[in-house]
Amino acid sequence: MSEKPNALVAQSGGPTAVINSSACGVIQETMKSNRIGRVFGAANGILGVLAEDLFDISAEKQETIEGLRSTPAAAIGSCRYKLKSLEDSKADYQRIIDVFKAHGIRYFFYAGGNDSMDTADKVNKLAADSGFELVCIGIPKTIDNDLAFTDHCPGYGSVAKYVATCAMEAGLDTEALYTTDTCTILEVMGRNAGWIAAAAGLARTTSQDAPHLIYMPEVVFSLKKFVADCTEVLKEFGRIFIVAGEGLKNTDGNYITADAGTFGKDSFGHVQLGGVAEILKSVVEKELGIKARFNKLGTNQRCAMHFASLTDVHEAYMCGQAAVKAALAEVNGKMITLLRSDTSQYNCTTGLAELSDVANGEKKVPAEYINQQGNNITDAMRDYVRPLVQGEAPIKMGPDGLPVFMRFERKTLDRKLPDYI
Amino acid sequence: MSEKPNALVAQSGGPTAVINSSACGVIQETMKSNRIGRVFGAANGILGVLAEDLFDISAEKQETIEGLRSTPAAAIGSCRYKLKSLEDSKADYQRIIDVFKAHGIRYFFYAGGNDSMDTADKVNKLAADSGFELVCIGIPKTIDNDLAFTDHCPGYGSVAKYVATCAMEAGLDTEALYTTDTCTILEVMGRNAGWIAAAAGLARTTSQDAPHLIYMPEVVFSLKKFVADCTEVLKEFGRIFIVAGEGLKNTDGNYITADAGTFGKDSFGHVQLGGVAEILKSVVEKELGIKARFNKLGTNQRCAMHFASLTDVHEAYMCGQAAVKAALAEVNGKMITLLRSDTSQYNCTTGLAELSDVANGEKKVPAEYINQQGNNITDAMRDYVRPLVQGEAPIKMGPDGLPVFMRFERKTLDRKLPDYI
Repeated sequence: MSEKPNALVAQSGGPTAVINSSACGVIQETMKSNRIGRVFGAANGILGVLAEDLFDISAEKQETIEGLRSTPAAAIGSCRYKLKSLEDSKADYQRIIDVFKAHGIRYFFYAGGNDSMDTADKVNKLAADSGFELVCIGIPKTIDNDLAFTDHCPGYGSVAKYVATCAMEAGLDTEALYTTDTCTILEVMGRNAGWIAAAAGLARTTSQDAPHLIYMPEVVFSLKKFVADCTEVLKEFGRIFIVAGEGLKNTDGNYITADAGTFGKDSFGHVQLGGVAEILKSVVEKELGIKARFNKLGTNQRCAMHFASLTDVHEAYMCGQAAVKAALAEVNGKMITLLRSDTSQYNCTTGLAELSDVANGEKKVPAEYINQQGNNITDAMRDYVRPLVQGEAPIKMGPDGLPVFMRFERKTLDRKLPDYI
Repeated sequence: MSEKPNALVAQSGGPTAVINSSACGVIQETMKSNRIGRVFGAANGILGVLAEDLFDISAEKQETIEGLRSTPAAAIGSCRYKLKSLEDSKADYQRIIDVFKAHGIRYFFYAGGNDSMDTADKVNKLAADSGFELVCIGIPKTIDNDLAFTDHCPGYGSVAKYVATCAMEAGLDTEALYTTDTCTILEVMGRNAGWIAAAAGLARTTSQDAPHLIYMPEVVFSLKKFVADCTEVLKEFGRIFIVAGEGLKNTDGNYITADAGTFGKDSFGHVQLGGVAEILKSVVEKELGIKARFNKLGTNQRCAMHFASLTDVHEAYMCGQAAVKAALAEVNGKMITLLRSDTSQYNCTTGLAELSDVANGEKKVPAEYINQQGNNITDAMRDYVRPLVQGEAPIKMGPDGLPVFMRFERKTLDRKLPDYI
């Protein structure tokens, strides 16, 4: 093992089309530096650190590492394990630092959402308190696009492009078969923020285009208003295409999906949603007397590498690179942000935000991006999202007529510490 | 209106990514002929004929017609209206012939599945009986790939490519997040035939790849076997990725989705399915005690032009062309078929089958394409489907970073007959 300090890269939370592109940026930039030894991966995010389940990315083939740019999901492995507060869970944080020490890790690059930034922040603070020299840099990642202090999040541009395209395509399907299949509901992800649902609005360039109606968690959902909206659209166009965020809430602030079931919560304590489309389908059929069907893209929307945004892939890589550059420039305890230039021509550079600020922030779709009726988007939203979906990311196609994605060989590091979890 | 006989092209049943490509083949080949006058479109399939709702495709811009090759769904309009037998519904058939007569239509090109071939066959026979010179040629179209007398159906290659790619991508998602989201179920279309589910198997090139398990309607579904399959896969890989056809049936031959609800049947009398994924998710969670989620691509799988098979687009166009060539060569009452050469290098040409034969046939996934366990596919299935998904169909991209699809201007023909429906 090298005498130089090593780097660790980890991925957290729900996969995206481009989190691997960020990892690629970290890895390739790290390998360029003569101040960093080897770069390791933590299998399944922070769980892999706790379990001392690490592997040597520096030992992987260059071709495999380059393949990260066009491979969706999270090649290093991800998890939803949420660490508690420093007081309640100090042993976990100490364990992380022990693992870092044991493997000479002085740089920690963590791609994730606000829960992950919180973890990175706490690890960083404990390290500082205990006199262990550590640099923690966060890399934004979420299809939900709800992180504060950044114009947008890597992962969002790709889901936006894919979902808007799906709305166009399924919209034409409904248009073709409206005499029987009169209403289609496209359910999209977004627990508390409607960014993904809003992006689908880009598909609509004339009034008859889908989606005619978009429902976002930012707007209180009223069944009565919904039925009125549908009735109006049906009268005007003879068909209805609806995009609905999974996290619609009623006037009481509760999700309209009543019973969350046995596995109703993920391990971050978030309520696991699903079923909005089924509810809306049933309302449309009952109240309007027309047939409705629903498409639920599920995890396919967050890992649609086959039609990912080139802009998103580039920016995700740039965030990974910027994280390493920042770390080498003595920056610590920050997350990389994306800054949009104030020019007519879109231009995006990186900035920095405090990990602790990001951890506690949340960015919803602002009022000016939502129409007055609360059932569609405005041109301001279109202007916001349009640059983020530009270009189609290249993928490698194989002899089966399908994409070829990479997978690490995973040369696991020998364990040096007792079992922990 | 021209003195020459006119042609009518109509689309029927569920949309596909390439039914418009077939229409493009018909239209462009028709326009080349000096024996055919104008080419009309019937808005919403046979419904448009009955309603005398026709428009003049010859008056559309060349660019619009060319755009059919890269536009999904059914640009002329489709329907699920099923005509009854000649005895029970002779007025309908007579009306169709009256409309043809009124607009000088002597060529009828009808793209659809076996119900549509049945309609075309009956119209053709009544025309012959009543001494009206009419040429009816069918063009195969169904993502279900269940038409007999043809090696495969236009529409299938594209859904196969898309669904297999979705299985790869969502499979990596499950692999990345298996510590919490351990099982994913991808529900795909296919009422009675498992061709689409089977195609997803092409995604699996190593044993750890998704899909680990594939359930097709051809195999009687046993919950006990399903639980045993899942338990084994979970033990071996720590995660489970399942592809399930919507039309799974139990030992009694009933769909496992018990209650079809108010809108439980389409107007062809087919039971409308949905809910297989929800059932399997609930079984996995209950019996294995792990979290499961499901993706239901719905209509998005049948109109995914953004990643359609180039081979499929070409062959669909070829079928449209062949239909016109056959009609001009005095062929009548036939459907164009696709013939696969018996050579190691895939080659596909067109043939002909009797409309009446196709109407009554159905082609399921043969036993040799399904593994002995009944839960995955064999190499023979891979060899069958691989050539059909080759190449990516080009699409036109617009300034919004999204595809640009065409829409007809629809110069409607003046009505010459009294109202009928």
